[in-house]
Amino acid sequence: MTTQIGILVVGNEILDGIVLDTNSHWIINQLKALNLHVKEKATVRDEVPEIARALRRLGANGCNLVFTTGGLGPTHDDKTLGGVAEAFGLPLELNEEALGIVTRQYRDLHERGVIDSADLTDARRKMAVLPRGAKPLDNRVGGAPGVLLDVEGVQVVCLPGVPGELMWIFDNQLLTLLKQRVEGAFAEEIIFLPLRDESTLAPIIDDVMRDIPDVYIKSMVKPYGESGIRLWVSARGRSQVEVDERVNRVANLLVHLCEKRLPNG
Amino acid sequence: MTTQIGILVVGNEILDGIVLDTNSHWIINQLKALNLHVKEKATVRDEVPEIARALRRLGANGCNLVFTTGGLGPTHDDKTLGGVAEAFGLPLELNEEALGIVTRQYRDLHERGVIDSADLTDARRKMAVLPRGAKPLDNRVGGAPGVLLDVEGVQVVCLPGVPGELMWIFDNQLLTLLKQRVEGAFAEEIIFLPLRDESTLAPIIDDVMRDIPDVYIKSMVKPYGESGIRLWVSARGRSQVEVDERVNRVANLLVHLCEKRLPNG
Repeated sequence: MTTQIGILVVGNEILDGIVLDTNSHWIINQLKALNLHVKEKATVRDEVPEIARALRRLGANGCNLVFTTGGLGPTHDDKTLGGVAEAFGLPLELNEEALGIVTRQYRDLHERGVIDSADLTDARRKMAVLPRGAKPLDNRVGGAPGVLLDVEGVQVVCLPGVPGELMWIFDNQLLTLLKQRVEGAFAEEIIFLPLRDESTLAPIIDDVMRDIPDVYIKSMVKPYGESGIRLWVSARGRSQVEVDERVNRVANLLVHLCEKRLPNG
Repeated sequence: MTTQIGILVVGNEILDGIVLDTNSHWIINQLKALNLHVKEKATVRDEVPEIARALRRLGANGCNLVFTTGGLGPTHDDKTLGGVAEAFGLPLELNEEALGIVTRQYRDLHERGVIDSADLTDARRKMAVLPRGAKPLDNRVGGAPGVLLDVEGVQVVCLPGVPGELMWIFDNQLLTLLKQRVEGAFAEEIIFLPLRDESTLAPIIDDVMRDIPDVYIKSMVKPYGESGIRLWVSARGRSQVEVDERVNRVANLLVHLCEKRLPNG
């Protein structure tokens, strides 16, 4: 079954403009390197019903792999796992493996002199309370384990919002799992054209996409007069050699047609 | 009726990691300055059914003001207005006022020597084809007018994805409209605490939120040992004086409790 990916960003700090979300951009680029592509992204507030509704909707829209970012920490506003539990009607319960990770992390931080006490307070224990059936993902940077849950045909991967923790878990705990999902090939090329007007490009792009239909051409402009137009050409297929060749052929054709039809830029 | 705001970011370039979306962050902060708050954000690909579905869903979730960004330009991949039309069952038709804006913009760019021809090509004319009932929003930076549509209890505002154009339209065409929606007061304060462990803060935050319930406290960490914890305190209410005072009281209380209970950081 083809992997359809959703990303759910959780956090009032994003929707109130305190933090610019770069986590999802990072995840998207890691996935792209594996030829895995994101169908849809949603950002919701730190509210259990909002999180649950967004998760159910991403599943209903065909996403079978959903990453969440944020909301795994020790404070009251960390509600992602409550949202996951509500979305799929699962109870939340203390997970012994997760508790082992939390315990080890605080012991380690205490031994290194970073924190005063390694006590397993309620706030710390909260991070080991997972939806039933979930597995923790080790986190060696911070206190909150990631969470992996297979439920109702959807694989849910919950990652912390702290970028260094998110990246560590992704790189160290998820790559093997994600590589199993890779299928087919993807190629892309970005061409920079010294043109000042996107509208003159439109018929050229239309012609090329009609001639070579299995390719996607996106034009991206900067404000007029600034610095030209970027064309992003991408394609998917079964063979890497074939898609590389197809994208390269389209890129060359675009450059050729622009030179021929738009000699003055 | 309270304004509930949704943002719909449209563009494969976002979901494929070519472009980091900063437009929605900018819009969120402009709205926050007006005491208008965003409930939810969605990001979808350049596909009419995806755009239409996301718009309907934001409406169903209670959003009565929805901003879209991207997808208003002259090329085949600019599909936002098709998605708006499909979402609300409206035909797309040439809008004479929009055509006037497009015509003026290309004439002006031609006179300034930026482009070779002011001809109203099909690609340029496409930007004046709006859902029936929509009004264009003037754009003096680029070629694509913004779009304003009141339909089924939802006000839809479509802005171009090019940041300079989006900002110009927002600042010059929308502020009067948005100010009519402002109600109540909002205050926020960010406190930086030289603490290294978010979990020790959790019981303090819980105590403060129990004592002063109408306040929201969010803790934001950087990876352990790096640079402390930011606490973001915010509140809403009827009187600006009162919410300013409430947020300030909470901020002082948090600092006091941290100094008292966590003397070693």
